[in-house]
Amino acid sequence: MTKRPLNLDPDRFFPPEDRVRTIARELYATVSDLPIISPHGHTDPAWFASNAPFSDAASLLVVPDHYVLRMLYSQGVRLEDLCVPRRDGTTSTDTRAAWRLFAKHFHLFRGTPTRAWFDHVFSEVFGFDYQLDAGTADAYYDTITEALATPAYRPRAILDRFKVEFLATTEGALDPLDHHGTLNADGWGDRIVTTFRPDDVLDPARVGLAERLDRLAVLTGERTDTWEGYLRALRVRRAFFKVMGAKATDHGHPTARTANLSVTECRALFDRVRLPSPSPEDCELFRAQMLTEMAGMSLDDGLVMQLHPGSFRNHNPALFAQFGTDKGADIPVATNYVDALKPLLDKHGNNADLTLIVFTLDETTYARELAPLTGHYPCLRLGPPWWFHDSPEGMMRFRQQVTETAGFYNTAGFNDDTRALLSIPARHDLARRMDCRYLAGLVAEGRLDADEAFDLAFELTDRLVRDAYKLDSRPTGMD
Amino acid sequence: MTKRPLNLDPDRFFPPEDRVRTIARELYATVSDLPIISPHGHTDPAWFASNAPFSDAASLLVVPDHYVLRMLYSQGVRLEDLCVPRRDGTTSTDTRAAWRLFAKHFHLFRGTPTRAWFDHVFSEVFGFDYQLDAGTADAYYDTITEALATPAYRPRAILDRFKVEFLATTEGALDPLDHHGTLNADGWGDRIVTTFRPDDVLDPARVGLAERLDRLAVLTGERTDTWEGYLRALRVRRAFFKVMGAKATDHGHPTARTANLSVTECRALFDRVRLPSPSPEDCELFRAQMLTEMAGMSLDDGLVMQLHPGSFRNHNPALFAQFGTDKGADIPVATNYVDALKPLLDKHGNNADLTLIVFTLDETTYARELAPLTGHYPCLRLGPPWWFHDSPEGMMRFRQQVTETAGFYNTAGFNDDTRALLSIPARHDLARRMDCRYLAGLVAEGRLDADEAFDLAFELTDRLVRDAYKLDSRPTGMD
Amino acid sequence: MTKRPLNLDPDRFFPPEDRVRTIARELYATVSDLPIISPHGHTDPAWFASNAPFSDAASLLVVPDHYVLRMLYSQGVRLEDLCVPRRDGTTSTDTRAAWRLFAKHFHLFRGTPTRAWFDHVFSEVFGFDYQLDAGTADAYYDTITEALATPAYRPRAILDRFKVEFLATTEGALDPLDHHGTLNADGWGDRIVTTFRPDDVLDPARVGLAERLDRLAVLTGERTDTWEGYLRALRVRRAFFKVMGAKATDHGHPTARTANLSVTECRALFDRVRLPSPSPEDCELFRAQMLTEMAGMSLDDGLVMQLHPGSFRNHNPALFAQFGTDKGADIPVATNYVDALKPLLDKHGNNADLTLIVFTLDETTYARELAPLTGHYPCLRLGPPWWFHDSPEGMMRFRQQVTETAGFYNTAGFNDDTRALLSIPARHDLARRMDCRYLAGLVAEGRLDADEAFDLAFELTDRLVRDAYKLDSRPTGMD
Repeated sequence: MTKRPLNLDPDRFFPPEDRVRTIARELYATVSDLPIISPHGHTDPAWFASNAPFSDAASLLVVPDHYVLRMLYSQGVRLEDLCVPRRDGTTSTDTRAAWRLFAKHFHLFRGTPTRAWFDHVFSEVFGFDYQLDAGTADAYYDTITEALATPAYRPRAILDRFKVEFLATTEGALDPLDHHGTLNADGWGDRIVTTFRPDDVLDPARVGLAERLDRLAVLTGERTDTWEGYLRALRVRRAFFKVMGAKATDHGHPTARTANLSVTECRALFDRVRLPSPSPEDCELFRAQMLTEMAGMSLDDGLVMQLHPGSFRNHNPALFAQFGTDKGADIPVATNYVDALKPLLDKHGNNADLTLIVFTLDETTYARELAPLTGHYPCLRLGPPWWFHDSPEGMMRFRQQVTETAGFYNTAGFNDDTRALLSIPARHDLARRMDCRYLAGLVAEGRLDADEAFDLAFELTDRLVRDAYKLDSRPTGMD
Repeated sequence: MTKRPLNLDPDRFFPPEDRVRTIARELYATVSDLPIISPHGHTDPAWFASNAPFSDAASLLVVPDHYVLRMLYSQGVRLEDLCVPRRDGTTSTDTRAAWRLFAKHFHLFRGTPTRAWFDHVFSEVFGFDYQLDAGTADAYYDTITEALATPAYRPRAILDRFKVEFLATTEGALDPLDHHGTLNADGWGDRIVTTFRPDDVLDPARVGLAERLDRLAVLTGERTDTWEGYLRALRVRRAFFKVMGAKATDHGHPTARTANLSVTECRALFDRVRLPSPSPEDCELFRAQMLTEMAGMSLDDGLVMQLHPGSFRNHNPALFAQFGTDKGADIPVATNYVDALKPLLDKHGNNADLTLIVFTLDETTYARELAPLTGHYPCLRLGPPWWFHDSPEGMMRFRQQVTETAGFYNTAGFNDDTRALLSIPARHDLARRMDCRYLAGLVAEGRLDADEAFDLAFELTDRLVRDAYKLDSRPTGMD
Repeated sequence: MTKRPLNLDPDRFFPPEDRVRTIARELYATVSDLPIISPHGHTDPAWFASNAPFSDAASLLVVPDHYVLRMLYSQGVRLEDLCVPRRDGTTSTDTRAAWRLFAKHFHLFRGTPTRAWFDHVFSEVFGFDYQLDAGTADAYYDTITEALATPAYRPRAILDRFKVEFLATTEGALDPLDHHGTLNADGWGDRIVTTFRPDDVLDPARVGLAERLDRLAVLTGERTDTWEGYLRALRVRRAFFKVMGAKATDHGHPTARTANLSVTECRALFDRVRLPSPSPEDCELFRAQMLTEMAGMSLDDGLVMQLHPGSFRNHNPALFAQFGTDKGADIPVATNYVDALKPLLDKHGNNADLTLIVFTLDETTYARELAPLTGHYPCLRLGPPWWFHDSPEGMMRFRQQVTETAGFYNTAGFNDDTRALLSIPARHDLARRMDCRYLAGLVAEGRLDADEAFDLAFELTDRLVRDAYKLDSRPTGMD
C-alpha cells in the first residue's frame, strides 16, 4: 500500500471563486498568527500543573475525544477496543491496537471537522507528510508517541508553541483547584484559569445532591441546609474560584428555563429538592431559579455567565452503564429561549453590567430567537457555534443566520470548547478562516467595505473575546 | 478624522461569480426602475394628508425605527438619549445629540440590512458621498435637516420621487380614517389606501376590550354586546374601510391558531371574553375563531386577508412600561401552521375566491409547513420574508426553501412592511436584487431558461403583487 | 406561437464557478451511467407483472403524480378536470383535455424539481426538442401516447432501458403479492421485489382494524385476537414477504414515537385498541410499541427497517372525501426523534445487526437530532432527503447539515421513492449530480482529497445503498 500524501491546502476552507478567495486570503493573513485566546474549554489542568509528558498517541488523541468515539461506535467499533476505561475499572491497555483501529476507520471522518482537525495536528504539530490509514498506523503511532516523550511536547511547551495566551479550564464547584494552585504558584495563573461550573451543586436531578451539599458546607463553612445558607455557600465558592483566577461561570442545564420565585417559594422548593427522589418538575424549577440567582451573583462579583443548554446527556443507557459520561452519546434537543429566559431577563436583562453568554445546539433558534434576543437585551451576548456546529458549515450558518439581526458586536468571538489539547490551534484556525470567508463574501457583494472587514477580522478573533469575557489586559504569561 | 467614502456598489448583493453576476445584472436592469407597489406597510397617513415637512434627521430616521433602537439598546445606549418619547410624556428634545449617538454607534450595523438601507438613503436620497460616523454626524444632521425643510422632501413629493405607485398603510378598526378622507378628497385615495387591522377589537387579551367594543358600537350603530351584533359591527366597519380604499385586512395574532366553533359555542365564548380577566385559553380560542370569521367576511367583501403570527410582543416589561410598544423588544417564537390553520382551511381552504396571505417569523416552517400548505390550498399565498428576515440572507433562504415546493406563483411578491418612509426604495431595491440573484443562479445552473427568468423578474416585482392583493388596474394617481 | 427549444444543459445542477464545476463534471462522469438501484419506491407491480402498455400521456404522467396535482390544485385547477378518479367511481375520461390543462399550467413548475424531472423525461425518454406549453400540448400528447403503445415503452422494456438493476415496490401486509408471484415465475423476482408495509394492520386509528385483523388471521392461520397470536401472525406475514423477495419493511407512522411496554401492558393495550373508537393516545402508544416489536422481528429475520414519520396525511378533508389519498394534501409536521426513538434504541440501539433507516420531512432535525443519533447508534442509518426535500436545494441542505456530524458512511444513498416510473432516471441523475456537486465543493475548498471524492461518488451511488439494504450480490436479472 503506497502512502497517500498529506498536504494542507493553504487556501483550505476559503471559497473557490477567485474574487472572494483573494479577499479572504488577505483578511486571514492579518489574523492567522494572532495569539490564541481560549475562554472556554475542557482541557485537564493537571496536565499543565504537573507538566508531565503524555504517554502515547492513542491515550492523548483517541481515548478522550468523544467526536472520535461516537463515529467509530456508530460503525460497530467497540469502545473497549479503543482503550476507553470501563466504570468497573477494567481497561484495555493495548493502545497500539486502539490506534490501529482508529487508523483503519479514519475514512469515516471524511467531510467532518474531526478529519480537518486531525490532519492539521498531524501536519502542523507532528510534521507528517503522508496520510493516516491502516498502512501507516504504526508509523504514526511510533512517531507521535516518541515525540510526546520529548520536552517540546510537554503540556506547557505545547501552549507556548501554540501561542495560547489565555486558556480557561472548567471545574465543578467542589473541586479543590489544586492544579490551579500549582499553576498560580508557578506564575502561570494569569494564563490558565479555572471556570466555575456548579451544575453538580445546582441540579437535584443528579444523584447524590445531599452528600455534595454537605461537602459544600465543609468547604465554605456555611450551612447548606437552608436556602440562605446555601446561597451564601455558593457566593463563598464563587469568590474562591475568582481568587484562583476564574473569569466566568458555566451552566450546562438541560434547558434554558429560568425562574424568579419569591424567597418563600425558594425556601420551600429548596427543602423539597433535598428530599430523596425530587420530582422532575421540581428539579427543573430549581435549576431555573438557580440560573437567576447566578445572574444576580454575577452582578455582584463580575463573573461572566455562560449558559449551554439543550443537550440530552447520556442518551444511551447501556453505554453509560459501562463507560460513563462523555462518550459521544449526548444528543441535542429542540431548545426554547424566548419563554425560558424571560424570568431572568425580566429581573436582570436591562443591566449592562451583567454579561450572559448564551449558546445553543438548536440552530433553528439562531435567527428566530437568539439573534433577536441578543440584538435587544444589553446583558446578552451570543456564544459561537457549539459542539456539533463547530465546523465549516456550522460556522457559516451561524454568521448567515445571526449577523443580519444581532450584528457582529453582540457575538462573543470563538470558543474551542475542547478537551483535545493538540486540536486547539486547528480549531481556532478553522474559525478564523471561516470568519474571513464570511467577511470576504460581504465585501465581494458590496455589503461591507474592505477596511471594515479588516477591522472585523481582528475584532472577531481578539477584541470581542476580551470584551465578552472581561479580559481587560494582556496577561503576564505571554510577555 | 478623514471622511470615509460612501459609494454604493452598482452590483451590490449580486453574487461574485462572473457568470451569475452577469445574468443577475441583466435581469435587474429590467426591473430596477419599475414603480413601487407597497401593499403592506406602516407609514403614517398623517404625513401624506398634511404633507407637512419632516422636522429633522433624528426624528425621521432614528426615533421611529425599531431596528435602530434595538441594536443601540443592546449595546447599552439609553432610549431616552435617542429622543424616544416616554409614556409619561417626557421626551428629550435634543435631536442633534440623538443623531450623534446614532452616528457614533453606526458601526454596530455592519453586516445588517439596516446598514444597507441607510447607506442607500444617505447616498440616493440625500446625495452623501462620505460615510456616517462620529466625525461626520453634524454634517449629516445639518444636511438632512435642511433638506427636509424643502418642498422636494415633503411627504407627497417623496412618494413621487420614489415612484411609489401604490402604498397601503395600516389602521385599527376604530380609527376614523380622517387622514385617508383627506387623501381621498385630494385625489390621492387610489394611491394611498388604508388596511383594516382589527386586532384591537378581536383580542380580549388586550386591556380595555369592553370600552373598545362600546366605541365600535357607536361607530357602527350596531349592538356589540351580542355575538351577532358584534359580527354585524365588524362587517359595517370592514365596509367603511373598503369604501375608504382598503384592499386588505391584517391580523397580528400571537399564533396562527384558528377555530370553527358552533354559533352556540361562539355566543358563550363571546360572553366569557367580555368579562373582566378572561382566561388566556379563552382569549386564544376567541382570536382563533375570529380568524375564521374574518375569512368568511373576506369571501363576502373581497378584502384580501393577511396573517402575521408568531411575535412575542413587548418581551421586555421594564422597557414597555417606560416607552411602550414597537421599541425593538418583540421576539419571534416557534410557530405552527399545519394544525393551527386547519379549522379555517377545513371551512374555506378550497375556495379560490379567498386570498389568505400567510407570513412567518419562524423560518423552519418555510419548507416544512408553509410551502406545502400554499402549494396545495387554493386560498393560500405565501407572504415575503418578514421583519427580521427582510434581508439578503433571509430572502435567499426564503427562495431556496420555498420555491421547490410552492413554486413562484404561490408567493405574493414583496412587502416593505416599514414605517421608515425614506427606506422604501432601498428595501424594494434589495428585494429586486435578491430575486434577480436567485433567478440568475437558476439560469446559470441550467434550472431555468433565461426567457423565463426575465418573465419571473417582472412577475415577482409587479404582477404577483397585483394578483395577490387584487390590485386590478393602474391607479389614477400615477397617470 | 413559436416552439420554445428544450435542451437539457449537460452541466445542469453543477455550480457555476469553473473550478468546482470542472471537478463536479469529472466526478459525475464516473457515476452517470451506473445502474440504478431503487430500494424504496411506489411503482405498481401490476405494470411489470402484466407488462401491458400504458394507455396515454395523461394517465401515466399526470393522474398518479401528486406533485403535479398539488401544484395545479393550488392554482385553482379542479382535480376532476385532470381525470383524477373520484371515490364514487366517476371519472372524466378526456385525458387529452387533462393533458392540455397540465400543459397550459406547466409554467407553475418553474424552479421546482417537477419541472426538472419532466424536462428530463420529455427530452431523454421521448426525444422532444421543444418545450411543453399550451401550444405544444397536442403534439406532446400524441407523440407520448403513440410511443407508449410500442414495445419499447412496455414496463419491462423501460426498466431495461433505464438500467434499473433493482426496484423495490411497497405493499400492505394483507396484499396477496400476486404480481410479485408472476414476476418470480417470469424470472424477474430478484430484480423487482416487494417491501413489507404493515401500517394497515399496526395502526388502530385507521378505520376497520378488526376486519383487517380477521383477514390477517385467515392469511396466516394464526389467531389475531390475542397479543401473542397477533405477533405470530405478523412474523408469518413477514416470512411470506421475505420469501417473495422483500429486503425491507417500511413504516409510515405519524410520529417517530416508540415504546417498550411489558407484555402485560401490551396485552391490555392490544385489547383496548381493538375496541371501537380507541383513544388517540392508545393508538399512538400501540403504533409506538409496534415499531419496537418490528425492530425485534427485524433482528430475527434480517429485514431492514425503514421509518418515514412526520406527514399529516389527508390534511384537506373535503378533497379526501371526494378523491381519497395521495392527491397532494399531505403536509409535513415538526418531528421529534430524540425522545421518540429512545425506547426502541434503549432496547435494540446498540445492536449492529439491526438496520433502521430513518427519514424525515422536518429538516430542522438533520443537524440537531438525526446526524447526532445516526452518528452514534450502530443500528441507525439516515435515509436520503425525502419527498418535498428530494430536490437540488433539499439535497444540498441534507449534505451540508448532516455530513459534518454523521459523515457519509451513516447515510444510505439515494431513494427515488416514486410512483412516477418514467421519472426514475431523472431523479437518480439529479441525486448523482448533487452529490458530485457537494463533493466537488469539498475538494475545491481543500476539505477532501480528489481521490476520496471519486471513491465517495461511487459509494453514495452504489455501495452505501447495497450496504444499507443488505443487497449483497448482483441480481441475476441484469446479467
